[in-house]
Amino acid sequence: MKSDERSAVRDSRRDFLRKGTVAAIALPALSVLGACGESKAAAAPADVASSATPNPPSVQERADAMDAMHEKGIKAFPAATSGKGNQLFEPRMEGGVKVYDITAEEIQWEVESGRKVKAWAYNGQVPGPQIRVREGDRIRVNLTNKLPESTSIHFHGLELPNDQDGVPFVTQPPVKPGTSYTYEFTVPNAGSHMYHSHHNAAMQVGLGLLGAFVVEPKSPLRAHRADVDYVMVLNDGSHGYTLNGKGFPATEPIVCKQGQTVRLRFMNEGMMIHPMHLHGMHMTVIAKDGWDQPAPWKCDTLNIAPGERWDVLVKGTNPGTWAFHCHILPHAESDHGMFGMVTALVVQKPGIV
Amino acid sequence: MKSDERSAVRDSRRDFLRKGTVAAIALPALSVLGACGESKAAAAPADVASSATPNPPSVQERADAMDAMHEKGIKAFPAATSGKGNQLFEPRMEGGVKVYDITAEEIQWEVESGRKVKAWAYNGQVPGPQIRVREGDRIRVNLTNKLPESTSIHFHGLELPNDQDGVPFVTQPPVKPGTSYTYEFTVPNAGSHMYHSHHNAAMQVGLGLLGAFVVEPKSPLRAHRADVDYVMVLNDGSHGYTLNGKGFPATEPIVCKQGQTVRLRFMNEGMMIHPMHLHGMHMTVIAKDGWDQPAPWKCDTLNIAPGERWDVLVKGTNPGTWAFHCHILPHAESDHGMFGMVTALVVQKPGIV
Amino acid sequence: MKSDERSAVRDSRRDFLRKGTVAAIALPALSVLGACGESKAAAAPADVASSATPNPPSVQERADAMDAMHEKGIKAFPAATSGKGNQLFEPRMEGGVKVYDITAEEIQWEVESGRKVKAWAYNGQVPGPQIRVREGDRIRVNLTNKLPESTSIHFHGLELPNDQDGVPFVTQPPVKPGTSYTYEFTVPNAGSHMYHSHHNAAMQVGLGLLGAFVVEPKSPLRAHRADVDYVMVLNDGSHGYTLNGKGFPATEPIVCKQGQTVRLRFMNEGMMIHPMHLHGMHMTVIAKDGWDQPAPWKCDTLNIAPGERWDVLVKGTNPGTWAFHCHILPHAESDHGMFGMVTALVVQKPGIV
Repeated sequence: MKSDERSAVRDSRRDFLRKGTVAAIALPALSVLGACGESKAAAAPADVASSATPNPPSVQERADAMDAMHEKGIKAFPAATSGKGNQLFEPRMEGGVKVYDITAEEIQWEVESGRKVKAWAYNGQVPGPQIRVREGDRIRVNLTNKLPESTSIHFHGLELPNDQDGVPFVTQPPVKPGTSYTYEFTVPNAGSHMYHSHHNAAMQVGLGLLGAFVVEPKSPLRAHRADVDYVMVLNDGSHGYTLNGKGFPATEPIVCKQGQTVRLRFMNEGMMIHPMHLHGMHMTVIAKDGWDQPAPWKCDTLNIAPGERWDVLVKGTNPGTWAFHCHILPHAESDHGMFGMVTALVVQKPGIV
Repeated sequence: MKSDERSAVRDSRRDFLRKGTVAAIALPALSVLGACGESKAAAAPADVASSATPNPPSVQERADAMDAMHEKGIKAFPAATSGKGNQLFEPRMEGGVKVYDITAEEIQWEVESGRKVKAWAYNGQVPGPQIRVREGDRIRVNLTNKLPESTSIHFHGLELPNDQDGVPFVTQPPVKPGTSYTYEFTVPNAGSHMYHSHHNAAMQVGLGLLGAFVVEPKSPLRAHRADVDYVMVLNDGSHGYTLNGKGFPATEPIVCKQGQTVRLRFMNEGMMIHPMHLHGMHMTVIAKDGWDQPAPWKCDTLNIAPGERWDVLVKGTNPGTWAFHCHILPHAESDHGMFGMVTALVVQKPGIV
Repeated sequence: MKSDERSAVRDSRRDFLRKGTVAAIALPALSVLGACGESKAAAAPADVASSATPNPPSVQERADAMDAMHEKGIKAFPAATSGKGNQLFEPRMEGGVKVYDITAEEIQWEVESGRKVKAWAYNGQVPGPQIRVREGDRIRVNLTNKLPESTSIHFHGLELPNDQDGVPFVTQPPVKPGTSYTYEFTVPNAGSHMYHSHHNAAMQVGLGLLGAFVVEPKSPLRAHRADVDYVMVLNDGSHGYTLNGKGFPATEPIVCKQGQTVRLRFMNEGMMIHPMHLHGMHMTVIAKDGWDQPAPWKCDTLNIAPGERWDVLVKGTNPGTWAFHCHILPHAESDHGMFGMVTALVVQKPGIV
């Protein structure tokens, strides 16, 4: 390839990217990625590749067909689905006690647009509604079991009195189908925790009986102040590879303004590790299982094992739409395009609404 | 469900738990969990659930049948089996040298009550007997191979002279069936280490040729003082998911008194990660592969990869019987109940014998 | 076994090892391990095992046959193959810009002696040529796609402007077969990074479209000074378990002189964790994903997850040839001998050339 041809490629690329990037950033969240997929842009490099070995048409056609599938997925992001998990759970107050009424029952859950699966859900959500309380709060959880088998709730990470620990035949009887059970306690240790079934749990948690349980500390550290606080629950059970109950492109982008700080709370409710890789910026790891690390440390790929929670801060220094995915690539991409454990961090330039 | 009904559930639950917990704690270790499984208790919530949707008998019956299997496993814990691995290995002294005679041979090993498997064992134990020495000790290991194939011992984690490293054709010849071989060295670096076969090891270690090799430091740190020192070897080879060679309910509970400190030494001799999750209390991680971490850090779920050793301290602040298991749930529970990598930490209240 | 017999075994062993070790260390790198496999040595213990239970010939014969396969593999190490990946990439300069011309195309790649596989390679190498630059350098990467499908390059770990991030339909169009594409940027954050395909990547990276991208800091830390700087790329795709594109015994030994410091840069481009275990000496972990850890920490088994990079220092204190392998044993050994993710660290005594 001669030098002037190379320049042509470069110029063509720059035009595309300038247009593409600005358009992407300016668009509302519902089409953060769509602008990059315009067919004119995708076709550009082929036009200028006159000096390269010509390919038989079938290669080109097959490449175009594969790329069209990839483009379609990305253009669809974030794809609309019915049902949203991990919504903030507003308790009702009963004499100073925050009361959470939770019903476990079977539902149909739309993991991706058009793909509905059988789920066992808390209050119709996968993950269940996000409990967010403060160290020292008194709370009560009324669990009603409408499932066809017994269940229980374990508050994973909370250092509770033994009789509130939720393990059938160890700390309580199983909660039979059609019955209710009540947990009540003063919230102990702060941090990113979880609640989930501890009965036939390999199946029940895989089907969706899980949720985030975030405990804000009485005296938050200044260094941990964040503009956006985002819980990301990973799962890999019978619903496939999911982030907060949805597979790409139905996952949710995380959005901040340039200069803002995002706190991510990773929680793995699955059966496999998921090394989450953020493009464009590093993550500063501040806590493990709700406990502050002795010193913060940096990475771009954080390996999250089943049952673990990791809290990180991301400083939104680098504007743009950044891929954010599990780096076990078969959890994130196939020849049909990206799927499963993929989302984006969108860092908006100042002045962009 | 009306408020007075909710109270009834709560009262009933409290009665059960008060009785259940006290009974459990008061019982000798051989039935730490049995008391929670009494059928009266398990039936209680069903009796008071008059306002809940009635289920067709078949749902209830199926739930009861599943729960009975779960209950049976837990009541059996810790289940009696023949053979106990990881027993402290008393050396004989020969002129200031601690001598360990180890015979590798095929045995039948009872992983759970009634489930016997073929094992290749050191001195008839899986894991092999626990070698526990002190930095600077002179030791000799006489290995006699009664297996039908060659073998060798690698002292995993010890920084030995090259010719004691145990890798056939690299640092020594293989130890043929029917022959013996001797290792001798001055114990170098302190910490939680292992010894295992390094010949056809994917199979030989999977079959049981492994053991703990703990080196106590010459000058132990005050901060690492513990009342209970417990080695937990994880494996996932042909014997299934095991803790110290046994699957739940044949695993061994770890017992301490309230206020005591337990030092756990996790060692993974398997082929998979195992994120071990402790209920009720956190673990303070102090060492990795025998080397002190620069600063201790806390967690409740510790991901242990093959070949790794992690030392943690648990302060027994929270009385009760606490589930302690691998959080890859299919390594710990099925619809037939808990199995495999499950045990309990029992923190006994003062005054309980 | 009587005491004088034990001495005989010990003496015989010592003779062998003294000869074996010296021979091994004295030999040029191409046969670092061969000397240990001499048949006289392997036969020695059998000769002196007169007091042990005699085995039926078939056991002995089967053991010998298995051992011969193990010995053959180790004697062959490091086995010659055509093609070497991860070679230092010399850029050409264009007006102060370091220019890297990269062609992606299908090749035949010899993973082990005689085992050729289909690979998709950058410039005919698996891993691709090693890019090694300095913080602040201006670089240009001209990618020419001679593959039968579209591709792209993501610079994994580099905090680039969004339009250089290499994600088709998000930050650029896919690079179609027969076309070229240019990336250009000022190298930002220092550290051990990677470059690889981000299009149909589960397949393309598995086939070999990956390479190391090392950024040296402007002001290197004195404490990180090393005599040997070695990149080890792990992969587990369609080529099997490989270190820098080769499976044992075609892997490359790492060689240093006693007292020297080796910096290892682990990079996982695969789909599985690989806990790399070094015999004989510990590793001091200094960086994760290119970012310095807040304090160095020590281990002998380092768990490396997909997408992660870990930098460690090894002080070559312990002379000898040391096994160095993934401790998921089925990634490193079968009953046919060691294979896959196995290499050796050779620490040469002073005076040995």
